[in-house]
Amino acid sequence: MPVVFDIGDGSQDALLVRIRAGGHEGWGECEASPLTSIASYICPMSHSACKPLQYSVEGKNIDAVEDIKRISESVHEHSPDLLQSDHTLSGIDIALWDLLGKKLNEPVYHLLGHKKNFPKLPYASQLFGNTAEETFAKARNTNAAGFHAVKFGWGPFGKSGVEPDIAHLAAAREGIGKDAYLMIDAGTVFREDVDEAKKRLQALEHINAYWFEEPFISGALDAYKKLSLSDPKIPLAGGEGCNNFVQAQAMIEYAGLNFIQIDAGRIGGISIAKRVADLAVAKNIIYVNHTFTSHLALSASLQPYAGMEQHLISEYPVELKSLAQEIGKEKIIPDNNGHIYAPDRAGLGITVNTDRLKKYLVDVEIKVKGKQIYYTPEL
Amino acid sequence: MPVVFDIGDGSQDALLVRIRAGGHEGWGECEASPLTSIASYICPMSHSACKPLQYSVEGKNIDAVEDIKRISESVHEHSPDLLQSDHTLSGIDIALWDLLGKKLNEPVYHLLGHKKNFPKLPYASQLFGNTAEETFAKARNTNAAGFHAVKFGWGPFGKSGVEPDIAHLAAAREGIGKDAYLMIDAGTVFREDVDEAKKRLQALEHINAYWFEEPFISGALDAYKKLSLSDPKIPLAGGEGCNNFVQAQAMIEYAGLNFIQIDAGRIGGISIAKRVADLAVAKNIIYVNHTFTSHLALSASLQPYAGMEQHLISEYPVELKSLAQEIGKEKIIPDNNGHIYAPDRAGLGITVNTDRLKKYLVDVEIKVKGKQIYYTPEL
Repeated sequence: MPVVFDIGDGSQDALLVRIRAGGHEGWGECEASPLTSIASYICPMSHSACKPLQYSVEGKNIDAVEDIKRISESVHEHSPDLLQSDHTLSGIDIALWDLLGKKLNEPVYHLLGHKKNFPKLPYASQLFGNTAEETFAKARNTNAAGFHAVKFGWGPFGKSGVEPDIAHLAAAREGIGKDAYLMIDAGTVFREDVDEAKKRLQALEHINAYWFEEPFISGALDAYKKLSLSDPKIPLAGGEGCNNFVQAQAMIEYAGLNFIQIDAGRIGGISIAKRVADLAVAKNIIYVNHTFTSHLALSASLQPYAGMEQHLISEYPVELKSLAQEIGKEKIIPDNNGHIYAPDRAGLGITVNTDRLKKYLVDVEIKVKGKQIYYTPEL
Repeated sequence: MPVVFDIGDGSQDALLVRIRAGGHEGWGECEASPLTSIASYICPMSHSACKPLQYSVEGKNIDAVEDIKRISESVHEHSPDLLQSDHTLSGIDIALWDLLGKKLNEPVYHLLGHKKNFPKLPYASQLFGNTAEETFAKARNTNAAGFHAVKFGWGPFGKSGVEPDIAHLAAAREGIGKDAYLMIDAGTVFREDVDEAKKRLQALEHINAYWFEEPFISGALDAYKKLSLSDPKIPLAGGEGCNNFVQAQAMIEYAGLNFIQIDAGRIGGISIAKRVADLAVAKNIIYVNHTFTSHLALSASLQPYAGMEQHLISEYPVELKSLAQEIGKEKIIPDNNGHIYAPDRAGLGITVNTDRLKKYLVDVEIKVKGKQIYYTPEL
């Protein structure tokens, strides 16, 4: 976007990945800092375990699911000390699945082994208002738009004491009505401070919160676990900050979560997200996508658990900036029952609207030793 | 270095951080991809939780320990979704401690609360040879150089079956003699595969390995735990891949480790490393530095546990490329008892040899929307 605001809205910029191979094209999206991720793709090698991602990607064949797995494993083998690599790999992996699906004329969820495409209940995901009145107005609008579930998060929550938080929580419940699912997202505001988070539990119980999300930073296993054992008992959700499988595994096994939330654009793509979804089934914990960007990202995030009937809930962004809105020609829209589905089209089923995106394209140039090693490609 | 080889030698490039404030100057080093870390420092803001690191650093006062803590917390608050940020923060935090130590005329370990500077036993840290014969020759040289402890790692280990590994292990022990500590570092080669790692335990017991390091990727808590409970029981070491406190905490609490290895240049700097060192004491696990680069990095990595008498072992790089050798004017050299110490000088006690480094300086230029946002500064 021409102007990026200092708010928790992840749709204000976008890093798209386009991969071409064998006459086919795939698109993916990283939920990550664009410039930093680009740098990780083309940087000079530091040593054997800190290679740029292009080392594992370019010139490879993409004919079968195994080829995607091989690229993902190569990145993990050759770039583990390049911290940004998992975020960058995410968009690459998503683009590879899109490409392979188009080549084989199959939706990605089929290629992942899902037999059926089950309905998901989208929750309207949005930021708290700056005041409780604004939160109330937003909740009313969401109710009027027909959503049966809604999430409020970030904004002022946790930043100015318990009383204002209680007012926001009450306003949210009042605005959406007593029957809708209401999720609350603290946006990691309490860091590792269990006592501060505990002070909100009573109010969360009072509004019948469906879950309490990310009270703490990702990976703060002890803090999550302690809160999960506190009274009153509010179901906990977290995991969007995980950038690899073992981090998500730790959150599932040690954090006392009821919901594991995975962003395919951060965890290493659809391949790793599917591994987490399988683990969630095995460990009897509910898998939920994390998505706060485009419908290309939304499609990617639905694929890993499209065939998991019991895992019903889906994050659905409703406050997208125009950039994120214009990325996909097709939209994933709730049907008459209020449900959404992974697109039943080849690949991710979303055509990237390159014409509409030209106006947002940012020229980036990177030179090392006077030699240009990156320039923003043509759309 | 003019040429970077595809080997596990992290001294082939360097990202130095220089911070000036109030007439003082501090230096730090990131153990990280230079270009990617630079990008994370100056990238455009994506949203409130994905800001460039410069947001939290520039224009701030550095008068007391609390000021360093505030900057570290600001990075964690404003850049949690910028994955590379912890690696970049590491060099910044180290430079801030160096600067504050010079300003207050105190060694950093004093400022951290350590009363005494206890001796550390350095182990000569090096790569396996390409053949068992090469490993034997390296071990003999290390023995001749007077080291009482040695570590071999990476190279061919784990990559061509159990028999060649056993030959390398036997050669290492034979070369250094039966009394020296011998550590073995698998360099994460077995990923999450416990059975493959188990096949080496017998041979590790046979050579009386002091520890078995990083058989698995960082954060693979279950795999580490299972191996720690296997027979024969070999002490496990790991943690160098941790890039924040809670990851190290999880490794300490759930991985069955005997040694937690922390790289101050990756985990967020000296501040976070000190937090891990304190936790190691509380949890009765041995803290060890991870250092495979310059003596500036070595000094930074010694500070967090300089005052912890029981935590004796220290990684000591002995195969540094000339770049890493020339960074510091002063060296940290084993004394007649074979011990090293954190320098008893102000800050980190290492003067960066800017004159000698000029020949290695790499010109980097980054432009966004035609505007230069980074150019390599003068040394």
